[in-house]
Amino acid sequence: MPETKPPTAAVLVIGDEILSGRTKDKNIGFIADTLTDVGIDLEEVRIVADREDAIVEAVRALSAKYDVLLTTGGIGPTHDDITADCVAKAFGVPIGHHPEAVAILQANWKKRNIVPNEARLRMARIPEGAELIPNVVSAAPGFRIGNVYVMAGVPAIMQAMMDEVVKRLPVSQPLISETIEAGRGEGDIAVAAAKVQADNPAVRIGSYPYHDGNGFVTRLVLRSRDAAALAEARRAMSEALAGL
Amino acid sequence: MPETKPPTAAVLVIGDEILSGRTKDKNIGFIADTLTDVGIDLEEVRIVADREDAIVEAVRALSAKYDVLLTTGGIGPTHDDITADCVAKAFGVPIGHHPEAVAILQANWKKRNIVPNEARLRMARIPEGAELIPNVVSAAPGFRIGNVYVMAGVPAIMQAMMDEVVKRLPVSQPLISETIEAGRGEGDIAVAAAKVQADNPAVRIGSYPYHDGNGFVTRLVLRSRDAAALAEARRAMSEALAGL
Repeated sequence: MPETKPPTAAVLVIGDEILSGRTKDKNIGFIADTLTDVGIDLEEVRIVADREDAIVEAVRALSAKYDVLLTTGGIGPTHDDITADCVAKAFGVPIGHHPEAVAILQANWKKRNIVPNEARLRMARIPEGAELIPNVVSAAPGFRIGNVYVMAGVPAIMQAMMDEVVKRLPVSQPLISETIEAGRGEGDIAVAAAKVQADNPAVRIGSYPYHDGNGFVTRLVLRSRDAAALAEARRAMSEALAGL
Repeated sequence: MPETKPPTAAVLVIGDEILSGRTKDKNIGFIADTLTDVGIDLEEVRIVADREDAIVEAVRALSAKYDVLLTTGGIGPTHDDITADCVAKAFGVPIGHHPEAVAILQANWKKRNIVPNEARLRMARIPEGAELIPNVVSAAPGFRIGNVYVMAGVPAIMQAMMDEVVKRLPVSQPLISETIEAGRGEGDIAVAAAKVQADNPAVRIGSYPYHDGNGFVTRLVLRSRDAAALAEARRAMSEALAGL
């Protein structure tokens, strides 16, 4: 892409609960911030219900019109999670259980003593030809097919997936990142992390709690387009964590 | 409308600042809640930039597809507030200074010692044939043309306009409301209002601060589809306010 014309993006939020007002969307603002950081122009957002016709139509229209389409929601285990099927239909490809996704889910269930069932296995249904997007929070992966990136709707999971998606986006100025496994829970490190964020405005610091099988721990992801600023923020964060 | 099929609605949020992430949308959830309260199905939301082609296309598509379209944003005094012009274009009608809107603005400016200027007068530009939507917070009105209701983007103003819009919507079960002028500022009445809201779940209580020329006061709007519940909430609120 020429530097003068940044890539364009759209977001598609899928879920009856947003349209009814029961759940308030927290993903649009986060994705908007992230895309701005990496120099991609978010040009349109749509929210649609968990209805096949609405999802298929929106996926087709938005993926044709913009360079990138990001979706959130509808990839869980229940009957109304139909996003993967709808994306397959929009691309005209079959869908089935993805062997790597099945293996990821089974390993996670074993570690956490969760009994596999058919509903949970639905989360391994991935359109043919798609690439998996890792999910460090709850294992069940998202996926990319063509220019469409399919993520979970739960904000903590979506944010962790977005870190992976960002690496794959057609950014004009590549974003670099550093990951710090902080060990402790978010409550223990929040004050230190907020200070390092305030002192390092050229770096965006994401904090993602996840369960490591024993308890909740925190992964910090530092992102910047400035290598020196990133190195300094990493140093400051490591020092702050060591001092806790 | 037959009772078995509720009216359908879409929301169009207009504004670069939402897409860039600088401003986080607070209107979608509020409108979703309100429409659910009055028995209207919100089926789609779109967010587009302050660009004529994007706004005109979205207004045309959504007003044709759904019974009602509600828009927020882009009706202020600056050069990038182009919603009224775009709605006029979408409907193929001329736009000009609406005499009633001009009078409303001039009366408000006089009361608040604000000097009129060309930019402020832009807020009186209304498409031909449109009906004004009152704005108790900051005077500059919204408007309705056909099935499209055009509201401000500032949440406090949008919420006050939404109270007026709701009265005009094709609800299957009509919503009844009571207005209480609480006099004092929001901070003085918030605890009492929250208690009355908690005790009266069948009634939704909206709190709208506005400037009456001397200082900020609060208008409370109580809405319900249940007349007895509404009367009881009104009684409880009046009692609570009298006890302050």
